[in-house]
Order: sequence, then structure tokens, then C-alpha cells
Amino acid sequence: MSVHPHPSGHRLVPTSPVDPPRPLRIAVIGYGYWGPNLARNVIERPELELAALCERDEARAAAFTQRVPGVPVFGDFDEVLDDPEIDAVLVATPPRTHYGLARAALNAGKHVLVEKPLAKTAAEASDLIALADSRGLVLMPGHTFLYSPPVNKVRDLIQQGMLGDVYFVTSSRMNLGKYQSDGVICDLAPHDLSILLYLLEQPVAQVSASARSVFQEGITEVAFLTLTFANGVTACVQISWLAPRKVREMVIVGSQRMVQYDDTAADESVRVFDRGMEFKEPANFGEHQLSYRSGDIVIPRVDAAEPLGLELQDFAHAIRTGTTPRSHAHLGLEVVAVIEAAEESLRRHGQPVLLKRAAERAAA
Amino acid sequence: MSVHPHPSGHRLVPTSPVDPPRPLRIAVIGYGYWGPNLARNVIERPELELAALCERDEARAAAFTQRVPGVPVFGDFDEVLDDPEIDAVLVATPPRTHYGLARAALNAGKHVLVEKPLAKTAAEASDLIALADSRGLVLMPGHTFLYSPPVNKVRDLIQQGMLGDVYFVTSSRMNLGKYQSDGVICDLAPHDLSILLYLLEQPVAQVSASARSVFQEGITEVAFLTLTFANGVTACVQISWLAPRKVREMVIVGSQRMVQYDDTAADESVRVFDRGMEFKEPANFGEHQLSYRSGDIVIPRVDAAEPLGLELQDFAHAIRTGTTPRSHAHLGLEVVAVIEAAEESLRRHGQPVLLKRAAERAAA
Amino acid sequence: MSVHPHPSGHRLVPTSPVDPPRPLRIAVIGYGYWGPNLARNVIERPELELAALCERDEARAAAFTQRVPGVPVFGDFDEVLDDPEIDAVLVATPPRTHYGLARAALNAGKHVLVEKPLAKTAAEASDLIALADSRGLVLMPGHTFLYSPPVNKVRDLIQQGMLGDVYFVTSSRMNLGKYQSDGVICDLAPHDLSILLYLLEQPVAQVSASARSVFQEGITEVAFLTLTFANGVTACVQISWLAPRKVREMVIVGSQRMVQYDDTAADESVRVFDRGMEFKEPANFGEHQLSYRSGDIVIPRVDAAEPLGLELQDFAHAIRTGTTPRSHAHLGLEVVAVIEAAEESLRRHGQPVLLKRAAERAAA
Amino acid sequence: MSVHPHPSGHRLVPTSPVDPPRPLRIAVIGYGYWGPNLARNVIERPELELAALCERDEARAAAFTQRVPGVPVFGDFDEVLDDPEIDAVLVATPPRTHYGLARAALNAGKHVLVEKPLAKTAAEASDLIALADSRGLVLMPGHTFLYSPPVNKVRDLIQQGMLGDVYFVTSSRMNLGKYQSDGVICDLAPHDLSILLYLLEQPVAQVSASARSVFQEGITEVAFLTLTFANGVTACVQISWLAPRKVREMVIVGSQRMVQYDDTAADESVRVFDRGMEFKEPANFGEHQLSYRSGDIVIPRVDAAEPLGLELQDFAHAIRTGTTPRSHAHLGLEVVAVIEAAEESLRRHGQPVLLKRAAERAAA
Repeated sequence: MSVHPHPSGHRLVPTSPVDPPRPLRIAVIGYGYWGPNLARNVIERPELELAALCERDEARAAAFTQRVPGVPVFGDFDEVLDDPEIDAVLVATPPRTHYGLARAALNAGKHVLVEKPLAKTAAEASDLIALADSRGLVLMPGHTFLYSPPVNKVRDLIQQGMLGDVYFVTSSRMNLGKYQSDGVICDLAPHDLSILLYLLEQPVAQVSASARSVFQEGITEVAFLTLTFANGVTACVQISWLAPRKVREMVIVGSQRMVQYDDTAADESVRVFDRGMEFKEPANFGEHQLSYRSGDIVIPRVDAAEPLGLELQDFAHAIRTGTTPRSHAHLGLEVVAVIEAAEESLRRHGQPVLLKRAAERAAA
Repeated sequence: MSVHPHPSGHRLVPTSPVDPPRPLRIAVIGYGYWGPNLARNVIERPELELAALCERDEARAAAFTQRVPGVPVFGDFDEVLDDPEIDAVLVATPPRTHYGLARAALNAGKHVLVEKPLAKTAAEASDLIALADSRGLVLMPGHTFLYSPPVNKVRDLIQQGMLGDVYFVTSSRMNLGKYQSDGVICDLAPHDLSILLYLLEQPVAQVSASARSVFQEGITEVAFLTLTFANGVTACVQISWLAPRKVREMVIVGSQRMVQYDDTAADESVRVFDRGMEFKEPANFGEHQLSYRSGDIVIPRVDAAEPLGLELQDFAHAIRTGTTPRSHAHLGLEVVAVIEAAEESLRRHGQPVLLKRAAERAAA
Repeated sequence: MSVHPHPSGHRLVPTSPVDPPRPLRIAVIGYGYWGPNLARNVIERPELELAALCERDEARAAAFTQRVPGVPVFGDFDEVLDDPEIDAVLVATPPRTHYGLARAALNAGKHVLVEKPLAKTAAEASDLIALADSRGLVLMPGHTFLYSPPVNKVRDLIQQGMLGDVYFVTSSRMNLGKYQSDGVICDLAPHDLSILLYLLEQPVAQVSASARSVFQEGITEVAFLTLTFANGVTACVQISWLAPRKVREMVIVGSQRMVQYDDTAADESVRVFDRGMEFKEPANFGEHQLSYRSGDIVIPRVDAAEPLGLELQDFAHAIRTGTTPRSHAHLGLEVVAVIEAAEESLRRHGQPVLLKRAAERAAA
Repeated sequence: MSVHPHPSGHRLVPTSPVDPPRPLRIAVIGYGYWGPNLARNVIERPELELAALCERDEARAAAFTQRVPGVPVFGDFDEVLDDPEIDAVLVATPPRTHYGLARAALNAGKHVLVEKPLAKTAAEASDLIALADSRGLVLMPGHTFLYSPPVNKVRDLIQQGMLGDVYFVTSSRMNLGKYQSDGVICDLAPHDLSILLYLLEQPVAQVSASARSVFQEGITEVAFLTLTFANGVTACVQISWLAPRKVREMVIVGSQRMVQYDDTAADESVRVFDRGMEFKEPANFGEHQLSYRSGDIVIPRVDAAEPLGLELQDFAHAIRTGTTPRSHAHLGLEVVAVIEAAEESLRRHGQPVLLKRAAERAAA
């Protein structure tokens, strides 16, 4: 496949501040679970234009056409690659295909947003990063939680020093999942890990994992990860496909305050607990039962914006301006590296595994 | 100290079914945090009589006397041991004193209820068990949660098969704790472990632990334990003294249902989640956000009885009838043994530690 | 305006059960707050086709065109009326325009779905009903809550006898509202009233109202309505624009169970409280505080479907089959009549006002 | 019965600031539902001494003696009146007996705390007030909610101006009640009314009531009261014995903030909602569902102290110092007067009833 030299972010910068730039032309790759959300958000954003869908499945293609009558559907990815009018692709296909599709798109000069995980191995992820860098293209993993308003509210609280020193984090992510051959760590941990890396801004130094396979040997359905970050913060991550109640809860405990982030709690997703005054022992049974905290609680107002729309806005902005998107490829690589280490710990019956520093990994 | 031969449970059995037995005469040892609760509950129960308090601290003794004017206060434990009118002692003193006081009381022929942990080491706990057995006396650790109505509701659900096969358990127990020199595992884990042993009725096969000391090297304030039970069930226990919000939550996930037990949730402490029908992918963003479960939730009515009163009732019943109390000494020994193993795992930087079978331990 | 004879529901019935009928061609009238939701749902439903938008405001028209590129926008309602390809209109304009637009559309042979309230007076509403009947057209007020899954879950519980005899209902509907010249009763009460009529299937016999105007004399911002239904059930409705927290709560108390329906509670909107056994007085302070119910709670799984989609499906079904839609015009008329009576009570300083029986009203 | 001249609050003032005063000697009258709570709290407070119980029922008297062995039980109220060692009585007998017992006790020179309602009629209540004033004795109705920490937190917020101008209040108080011949208004409304009078510090200008009798003609089990206070604030009070879930919720809406006080919500009983910024219409269905408020929520830490203990402390303080207790007799009289007016409104089929100004009532 020859390399198309033309559509880079730089060429799209408007020649005059008066003219608004033409919208970026986007192809969505895959119209399964996530593709419809991508397509809808592309349509809603003025800086983007939905130029094409790529989907081989006829029923899915038909569903798309009812909703978005005028947009062409390609059955073959090469048609997308060969179309010089398409600036960028959004890859929403199964994980095992991410590396190959992203690589081909970068080689064809397209900017790429690829659903998480960025690739199956750290080596693959590094390879994509190098390729994007050499071509001057944006490569962005779709860690959508980095655009979630409650996650950003928590990050703001940490960065403003409201929590003081962060001591530890716990995270639970459970639901009744669809059976996936890669196991529950690959499926769910990228969410927790991307959020933790984003909140703490620290690399993971060590990870240990234990897990259980209930239905089929070797395919884990519940796992517990214990992480130590470079600055000593510890974290415990519980993930499972076996729970009939969706759980999406993270607790961050600091020296000044504690934050509880429950993504299922609708308009009360972030709760901030003050330490309050010195703890007073309750004087009787009734008081004992009633009192579970020492200070005030604040439930800040959190914007209800859809994270995926903000993610696409950031993608467009990165293409236009050359800036690094919030969900950047190096963060995506870290996520993949921690998952590899967790799986090594599993193979070694739960022994802790040290992670190479990101710098060493880059040098390797 | 000479051994008083007389007051055994058997002598207290009423000589005729018509006469109600006289109440058991109880001495409470220690009037710090927990002692007042013990004293109050002894007074409330018709089968018990508060015969004495043993407390050296004068302010505490005076507080007792205001509330309970007629009952003598001893400053010396030997006075309790030497009093032939006292049938049993309730030991509510610091953990390091448990073994010595319990041993002396058993040697003096008193039945003993000792606050958790039963002793500091499995060896000490085994020694107390052997002594109680040889003297025909009741030895009972105060694992009060075993008498908690929500814990028993959860246990009933498991035993009735409502959960199906139990897959895994997570437990979080956090608060702003008082600094204690033994570390957070010794202080808080006995609660989680006693509940897990009571719910699952399975010995622990292996445990690994990681922890963090924030304020003083060697004294842990947050710890994560990963347990595997003999039947393959896994559990993750998170405990901490650093959190300004009290957390007391356990999630038990089974093949049929999941139970969430939140001890801070007042009248809604137990929530049972049905698996419901096949999970349907939400069709749009709004549905995606709103739907976090696949079946009905039931919040059963749970009795509001005070656990400590039920614990004392069970103690009295065990003394009168010779039956094994629910919170029995062998369970207390298991708890101590798991804590010893967790601390060994900590010393070995998180490596999993295998536990001897209870039988082997008994033989050792 | 001449009457277009052609598009009646009957002509749209497919000539053969094999051929699926062609989609109904729909014009959305108004693209303000609610119109975009209507347009989106029309596009999503296979039995409907979005044929046109009618909107004079250019910015709104442009916003529509970006989302739905191929669909024409008319600036003049007569263009809609004159277009023989349009089968039905969805009127989402301010309340004072409802009567005139609906009347013109019915006269032009279009089926009409009009946002609540159906009209400003019972006389106008009756007039529209008579016109629709005489033309064989569907006239449907948009009481969207009648398609809300939690409302229907509550109705099912009542109809299955789970609640026993309904004794009384309380309803609170509050938010920070936009100032509207008609007052809070006109704006919010139609929701509560339509739900009450749908749940209880009883006409209102009497209503009294009290209200307060904080900012401008004569424009009420908070009101309390007390209703008595024909079968003796009483209801208390609290509505306000002054509350910074959205409240959407209804409590229905029956002889067997009580239902709490909180529309802001996401996935736990319906809670069913059993009466349980005989109430036992709590024995101490702790129990007193903890115990607030006498039986189990069930939180049934409620479908997350979007009510508006179901409403449009029902509209299409009514047009195709000639059946009465769930949100039917006579219910819309009752709502308007109760609001008229409430405003009369307000003018009479809170005195109860009797409502004519629906039959008498029809005869008048 | 001769009048005992001696025990007035003034005589109990310590003769020297060095000597602590001897405790006040208290007799509890009645050991039914509330008496045990009174007795327990008297024992716990150092400034009080439990001198006697008056209870004719033998089983209740025996239950008392087990808990409090050394305290005499009188079967005859005259024994209490004749005992010169008793300073004050706490009357916890049925409402119809309050007036007679309180009158006799005042005549015997005892200070009196009488459970709510203070009396059955405003005339009786006024009579007791006049008698207590003439004798220089404390007369205090037991409006325990005035000592509830969350109620006082709400009052503080109002008094600090956090709510701005109060616009309106709603209150719901429901449970599964015991059948009482006086009807639900007499039984439950005193709680809501005492709290409203305490929070708003405004007399009630007008009240209207509607109610329903399900089981027996004339004995109401559910009632809705609409109140207007002298400053224009409106309130709606819903009370019922028919609901299987205890409801204890009050919402106070002001120009700056809104407070939700839910007495069943354990450690989160007070929630303060900021108005926040300008309300933004949600842009799509998902946002629409998720967003129910416009500003932050604060859940202040509220002390877990038992209200009854604070009430007794205030009673003792009023006796010792001659100050007016928080739950003062004129507030108790207002409560009785509003209930009388509500019952008159009921007899007049819901017509609003104006209340005399407190001053006129006093003059009458």
C-alpha cells in the first residue's frame, strides 16, 4: 500500500482566523457495540463530519443507513485507506484487530483513534507510537473515562491539594459480563488502570494479581490486582464479570480528605469526605450505629456532558493543533504494560512483578 | 493461685424444671471502650446478673458506679478469681492481656468470654482451648459480628442456596482509627475473617498480604489481603485506619445471586441482587447510564436486635447446656492463625503463604 | 383551508399481511426544547419517517439540518398542511398555540400528537376531541409519563392487586423552573395528574389548591393541591419551580403494600414496601433509630426504554389500527378540567371545588 | 391536697460556686413506651437523680426494678406528690391524663415535664401555663425534636441566612401506626408543628386540613394540612399511620438554598442543596435523566447525641437558673391551638381556618 502523503493535521489548520476550518472527515470502523455511539457523536460535533462507515456485516450496515441515510458504507477497510477525503479513522473493532488496523491506517496517513486497549502487547503499542510519531499523525487510544466529568472532578480535587497526600486507592469494577476469551483483566482493567494513571500521574512500580476461573480453565472471570506506584501509593483493583449488579466504585484516601467516586450513582457520583475533627468514641449503642464519619460530606455538581463527545473534541483538537490529547498513546502503552505484568504475576501464582520504568521500556 | 473447683456450667443446671435457674453471676473485666456495653447488656438480660466490675482506673470506676450504684468494683483481678460467687468473666482489656487473664480465669474455674482476638498467637489460642476443655469450662471469643442480624441474614441466604455456588467475596472495612501498635491487620481483620469463616464454613488455604505504613515504619495503616479458601472461593479484604468515612461493606457473589452487606446502611444493610434475565446491551447513551443491574433487588427486613445482647445470651446458654457457642474458640483460633499467616506474607513482600490444615495445627 | 381527504389511518393498513406497511410520514412542529427529542425518536423508529420539520427560527433550523441533513425544513405551518405526503404532525410549540395548530392539522386531515396540555381549557379540548372523532383521525396528547417504565411498573403492581386497596397518594414535583406566565400549576401539574388518572383509573371528584407567588403577584411558583377521587382515594400534590433539587417522587399507600416511585433514582426508581408482620416497638434508642419499616423492600428491575420512543410507537399503532392510544384525548381533557378547577379553588382562597362528572361535561 | 411550699428551682441554686449542686430528684410517671427512655436518660445525667417511678402496672414495675434495682416504685401518684424529696416529675402517660397530672404536680410544687401534647385544648394549656407562672415552677412540654441535632442544624442554617428567604416547607411523617382514638392529627402533627414553629419562629396564621378515615368513621388515619405562617411562608404537612415505611422528611426551600431533612437517613439526615449557576437545559436524553440539581450538595456532620438527654439537661438547667427552656410551654400551647384549628377545618370540609394571634389568645 502506498503512503498517502496528504492529510496531516497541519494541512487542516485554517489559513485565516476568519474562515472556520472545514470539518475533519471521519470514518468509523466497526458498527457493533461502540460504533453507533461514535457515529452519533461525530454527527453531533460541528468540527467533525461523518464521511463513511466501514462495516462488513449487512444487518449492522442497514441499521446505520436507517439512522444516517446519506453516508456511504464501505465493506472493505482498503476503501477507507484509499479515500483521500478521509482524514481520520475511529477503530471500534475487536481488540485483536487493533494493531493491524491502526498500523495500516497510520501508514495510509490517517489519524487514528483506537478503542482500548491500544494493542495486545507493549511491543505492539510501542511500534504504533513510533510509527505515528514518524508520520506526524495523531494516535489516540479511546480511554473514554479520561473525559468523564466525575473522573475529572476527582482529578481536579487531587491537583488542587484538597485530598492532601494520597495514601491509597481501591477500585471495584463488576458486572455481568459477556464471556471474552482474553479474560477479565484484559477486558476491564484498562478502565481502572487508565483512570489511576490519569489521577495519580505516577508510573506503576509493581503489580501482583490473583484470579479465579469458574467456567473454563485459563479464562479468568474475577481478579484482584494489587499495585504499588512509584511514589509509594498502593491500590487494590477488584474486577469481575460474575456480579449481577454493576459496580463502578473508586475510593481515594488522602491525608486531608477521602473521595468516593461511584459511576453508577447518577447525579451523586463524587462524594468528598472531610476528615473533620478528632474522632469521638460514640457513647452508646444508638450513637455507635449512627455515626460513620467524622466530617462533612460534599457532593459537588458534576457536568453531565457525554464523555465520548469530549473525547472526539480532544481528538479533533489534537489533529488541528498538534497538541497531545489527554488520552495519549503513552498512557495507552502504560496500560498495556501493566496488564502484561499482571498476567505474568498470575502465571507465577501471585508473586509481585516489577515493571520496567517507562524510560527503560522506551529504550528497549 | 489455688484452683477453685466449684463453679462449672453443670452445677448451674436447675434441679427442677419448675424452678427457673438463678442468674449466672458475671464479672466484667475492664471498663474502657467496650466494657460499658458489656455491663449494660448483662443488666438487661434476665439470665445474667452483674456481680462485679474489675477496673483499676478510678474515673472509669466512678462512671460505672453512677450508672450501676449497687455493684461492687474490684481493683484487683485476683479478687474476682477468689470470689466463689462469680461464675464467669467477660474480658474487655487490651489484646496483649487476653491470654494471661483468660488463662488465670480458666484456672480459677470461671467460664470466659474474651474480646477478639482470642490471643496473640495460634499457639496461645490452642493452649487456652486445651485448658478450657480439660476443665469443662466455656471459652468463647467475642466475635460479636457473628450475632449481627444482617450477617445472619446473609448466612441464611447462603445456607438456603439462594446465592447458588459462592464464587468470591470482597470486604472493605475502613475508618479513622486510633493508632495501635499492632497494626491495622491485627485490629480490623478479625472482624472480616470471623465473618468469612462463619459465612463460608471453609478453612482458609492460602493468604497473601500487602500493606502500607504512612506514619511509622512497621506499623501498617492500610492493608489488602487476598485469601483462597479450601473450596476455591477467593476473597479480597481491604482494611484501613486512614479513611474519614466508615466503610463496612461486604459483597458475596454467587452463581444465582449477589449479596451486598453494608453495615453502615442502617435499615437497608442487606441487599440481594437477582441475576435476572439475559443481559441486554443498552441501546443508547441514556439507557447505558441508567441500567446497572439485570434483575430485581430485595432488601429483606432485618431484626434490629443488638448483637452483643445475643452474644451474651449464647454465652449463658453454652454455660447452662454445655453446647458450643456460635462464636466458638476454634473459630477464634482460625482467625488468629490467618492473621499470623498474613503477617508472614507481609514479611515476605507479598508472597502467598499456605495455611496448615486445622487438623494438622491441632496435632502439632 | 380545504380539507384534504386522503391520509387517514385506515388507508395506511397494509393491503396484505406479507408487505410491511410503508412508514408513516411525520412532520415535527417546533424545534425548541422538546422537538429535538421528537425528531431523534422519529428517526430511530422503523414505522416512522421524518418527512419535515416546521420551524421559523433560523438557528434552530440550522441545528436540525446539521443533525439530519436530508430532511426539509418549512418555515410556514401551511406548507405542512398542504403537503399530501405528510400523514401526521407532532406539535411541540408553546401551550397557547396548541389548540389552533391541532385544530388546523385535524382539519387538514393529519393525525395529531400535541404536547401537554392538550389545550388551555376543557372547552377547547372537547372541541378538538369532537373534531378528531368526526374526521376519524387520531388526536393524542403527549403525556409522556404514561409510557415511562417505572410508572407502568407501578400501574402493574396496582392492577395485580399487590397494593391491595389504595388509600392515598402523595406526589412531589419540584425543580428550578423557568419562569412561565401561566404559573406552576399549568406547567407541572399535568404530569402528576396524568399519572394519577392513569394509575387510579378514577375521575377526580374534588380539588382544593393553595399557592404562593414570590416574585410576581398572580404568577404562582409553589402550589399544593389536595384531590379526592370518585372512589374516596385522596391525593396531595406539591409542585414548585423554586427548589434547586429536582424532586419527582410519588408515594402510593395501599392496604397491602406501599410503593415509592422516585423518577430521579435512576435504576432504583420503584421501591415496594411490604407491610410485614405486626410492628414491634423498638426496645432501645439504637433500635429506635435504625428501624424504619416493618417488612421487606423489593426494587423491581424496570426496563430502561425511552418513554418518548414508546409514545411514538403507540401513536403509530393507533393510526394504523384505529385503536385508542394509552395517552388518549379524554385523559388529556380530564387533566385540563382538573387544572381549571384548581385555579378556581385558588381564586376562592382554597375552598374545595367539585368537578362535574366526565359524563356531564361531555353532555354540556 | 396541701401545697408543698418547698422545692422550687431557686432553692436548688448552690450556695457556693465551689460546691456542685446536689442532683435534682426526679420521678418518672408511667413506664410504658416512653418511660424507659426517660428513666435511662435520668440515670445517665449527673445533674439528675432518679428518685422514683410511678407505675401501677406490675409487669412494667418489675421490668423497671430489674434494670434499676435500688429505686422505689410507687403505685399511687399522690405518693409522688407527697414526697418532699422529689423536685420534679416527668409525665409519660396517655395524652388525656396530661392536664390533670401536670396540674396536680404543679399544685404540689413540683416542676413538670409533660410529654406532648401539653394538653388536649388550648384552654387547658393556658391554664397550666398560668399556674406554673404563679408558682414559679418550670412547665415544659416534651417536644423532643427541638433537641434533635439535625433539626438544630437546619435551624442554624436558617438563622445564619444560608437559606436566604424561606419560601415554603413540606413535611411528611408516616409510619404504620397504632390505632389511637384521637386520630392521626393529634398523634403525629405535634412533631411537625413544633419543628416548624421552632425553625420559622413565626405564628401560624391559617390552616386547612383534609383527611381520610379508612377503618372507622371519624378517626382519621391520613391527613394533609396546609399552613400559612404570619410572614407568608406556606407549608404542607402529610401525616399518616397507614404507610409501612417510616417517612420523616422535611424540605425547606429558600431563596439561596434548599434543605432536605430526613430523620430516617442515619448519618446523612441533613442535605443542603445550593442553587448553583443558571440551569442549563440538558442536551440529550442521557443528560436529561442524569441531572437533577443545579449546584453542590453538602451533607454536614451532625452530632449523634440523643435528643432526650439534651432535653432533660435543658429541663434541669431551666429549673436551676430560671431560664426558659427551648421546648417552652408557649410553644406547646401554639401546637395545641393549631391542632384545634385543623380539626375545625376538617369539620368544615376543608375550609381554611384563621388562628387568633397568640396575644389575643393570651388576652382571652
